[in-house]
Amino acid sequence: MLTPEPPGIDYGPVDAAIDDIGAAGFVAVGGRFDPDLRYLTRFEGPERGYAFVRVPGRSVLCAPAGCVRAAEAGFDGEVTVDRVADPAGERAAAILDRERGDAAPGAVVLVPPTIPHDAAVYLEWAGYELRSTTAVAEARVVKSDGETDAIDAVQRAATAGVREAERLLAAAEVDGDELRSEGRPVTAGRLRRATNAELARRGVTGGGNTVVAAGAGTEAGGMNGTDGRIRVDDPVVVAVAPRGPYGYHGSVTRTVVVDSDGGWERRAYVAVESALDAALAEVEAGAVASAVGREADAELAAFGFDPAAVAEEAAAPGHGVGLSRRERPFLDSDAELKPGHVVAVEPGVTEPDRGEVRLSALVVVTADGYDRLGEGDPSFTPRP
Amino acid sequence: MLTPEPPGIDYGPVDAAIDDIGAAGFVAVGGRFDPDLRYLTRFEGPERGYAFVRVPGRSVLCAPAGCVRAAEAGFDGEVTVDRVADPAGERAAAILDRERGDAAPGAVVLVPPTIPHDAAVYLEWAGYELRSTTAVAEARVVKSDGETDAIDAVQRAATAGVREAERLLAAAEVDGDELRSEGRPVTAGRLRRATNAELARRGVTGGGNTVVAAGAGTEAGGMNGTDGRIRVDDPVVVAVAPRGPYGYHGSVTRTVVVDSDGGWERRAYVAVESALDAALAEVEAGAVASAVGREADAELAAFGFDPAAVAEEAAAPGHGVGLSRRERPFLDSDAELKPGHVVAVEPGVTEPDRGEVRLSALVVVTADGYDRLGEGDPSFTPRP
Repeated sequence: MLTPEPPGIDYGPVDAAIDDIGAAGFVAVGGRFDPDLRYLTRFEGPERGYAFVRVPGRSVLCAPAGCVRAAEAGFDGEVTVDRVADPAGERAAAILDRERGDAAPGAVVLVPPTIPHDAAVYLEWAGYELRSTTAVAEARVVKSDGETDAIDAVQRAATAGVREAERLLAAAEVDGDELRSEGRPVTAGRLRRATNAELARRGVTGGGNTVVAAGAGTEAGGMNGTDGRIRVDDPVVVAVAPRGPYGYHGSVTRTVVVDSDGGWERRAYVAVESALDAALAEVEAGAVASAVGREADAELAAFGFDPAAVAEEAAAPGHGVGLSRRERPFLDSDAELKPGHVVAVEPGVTEPDRGEVRLSALVVVTADGYDRLGEGDPSFTPRP
Repeated sequence: MLTPEPPGIDYGPVDAAIDDIGAAGFVAVGGRFDPDLRYLTRFEGPERGYAFVRVPGRSVLCAPAGCVRAAEAGFDGEVTVDRVADPAGERAAAILDRERGDAAPGAVVLVPPTIPHDAAVYLEWAGYELRSTTAVAEARVVKSDGETDAIDAVQRAATAGVREAERLLAAAEVDGDELRSEGRPVTAGRLRRATNAELARRGVTGGGNTVVAAGAGTEAGGMNGTDGRIRVDDPVVVAVAPRGPYGYHGSVTRTVVVDSDGGWERRAYVAVESALDAALAEVEAGAVASAVGREADAELAAFGFDPAAVAEEAAAPGHGVGLSRRERPFLDSDAELKPGHVVAVEPGVTEPDRGEVRLSALVVVTADGYDRLGEGDPSFTPRP
């Protein structure tokens, strides 16, 4: 994989929120898996919480000891060094105090609503009044070109990962009602491992997000899934959401049937393919997110499938993708789609006795439609 | 990899903390990467926060919609279903209210110090007084046999992953001062991808924790590292901390020198090997964690290496390993080692012009010493 350039960071929404109320600054605290912290710092730190402070026009990262070099490599601002035992909230308060000089106490500080409670309490002890802001979440939902490039890169790897599972299934021999390859049964676990190995070879991490669900016995997901054998006519759903450059995710869902009897799976596959096309046709700036999802549902219903049966386990028809593998805009929400939103459209149908058929496309919203990310070929999976 | 049995959950410390102050219950809120939530539920949920509630003798998981089946598969208690928009703190307050019936308001609820601030505020709005507890952190630090089995399983995969990098280096051809294999240069990125692919084949995820650092130009770590070529006499540090069954981590660090000139690297390797042995000899129940680290430092000093030069970037001599890849007990702390602590002992030396040499062992503390986890052979890497 060619690693794209580091995406920039748009502090505009945070600075605007600070300006709006004349706040002393903005503080975020979180660890390596906190998408807000990753966005604000482009730094993949340790698990324990560390602090980011924004004062008008300046950014400070309170880097945990042991990670200073990594912080300086990624972060475009001042890096200060914590000791391991320093509470992140206390460090943030010290930076705010330093920036304000001998200004009177009682200033307002903006924080994301999910800031750790202990950090919030430290800031309050230091005399700051907290007000919550969703400015970072707002900033993250619209992707810059650099962010879209990062998602495009990981999406290419994601497609290659799913293709590896398809290759294994295509090469499998039918043995009674079971599938075997190289003398061993083809299991959900084996497909998952092969998919994740291909993702790793492409330089991204499956990150525990790869799910292989076969037939009626759908895997619970993650690393602990069952390792059940796959029968010849099981629809096999392979869903990946690897994490790649700068922490951005891709998202690919495909369904393969090795030896369909041409019944339910074929009808379902045609319906879902059609629902995906119909949903994509609704995607453009200004559209309401839920209209995209509703279009998919309407198409499924036209084929005689009941979208409510799917909605029960709330497998929504799609969602945004970025530093979180699922994030705003959700395609069952009333959000307005904007240029730069990156969404996975992923309609599917489920039947308890047969299993699931699901397909996806990852697109970036444009003024008059969308551009597909990754390799962009939705139909490389042969219809059952 | 043979997946071990799911480890049990010891709610004893949480129940004791509830009893201690006659609290109404305990509430934790977090997402899929929160090690406390993972411990309390054995559930790998979505990224957005969800709530766990403990009232005396009973556990409730407020499972996010779409994850109910996965929650029920892993969790041994009541599972209730959230809608996507339900704030986790509000859900937790509703469960507490339900359990208390029409008891008077104003009860105390225990929470981890890092509970998201918005969840804490919801609980306070609902009339609960919050008190913070480290009971979950206490429960997590001592591993049960089931947890140790899970760590042992991922540790075997971790060793196999590092061996893959070693194999690639051993098979490389020397071309001037560079290494090549199959017609292409051997780079840090290529070693990292090969290591992660082997981890994936073994059913665990590198999780962005694989670091390959070669010579003086040490990689900043994670997915964004440099892809620099490796020179023949560079010491190559390969460090992995994959996530495996039930979210537990392994931890392996090895150093390989392909074609040493027998100078600094050899001295450093012998010193670090000796420091590792000396540190391990200190490991037993009742020992102070920092004594283990100090013993490593003393041994390095005896070989003429300055541990302070290492400490500057605060690469501590070791740390606990569990649902976090680095957790308590830290080997530079005054914690007392207890049976069931799992620690990575990982001394190393760094010299700006030459690079780094670091080795590790992962052990579980016993009454009179330790048992090694994983394959347990510290010296398969030939000395330079």
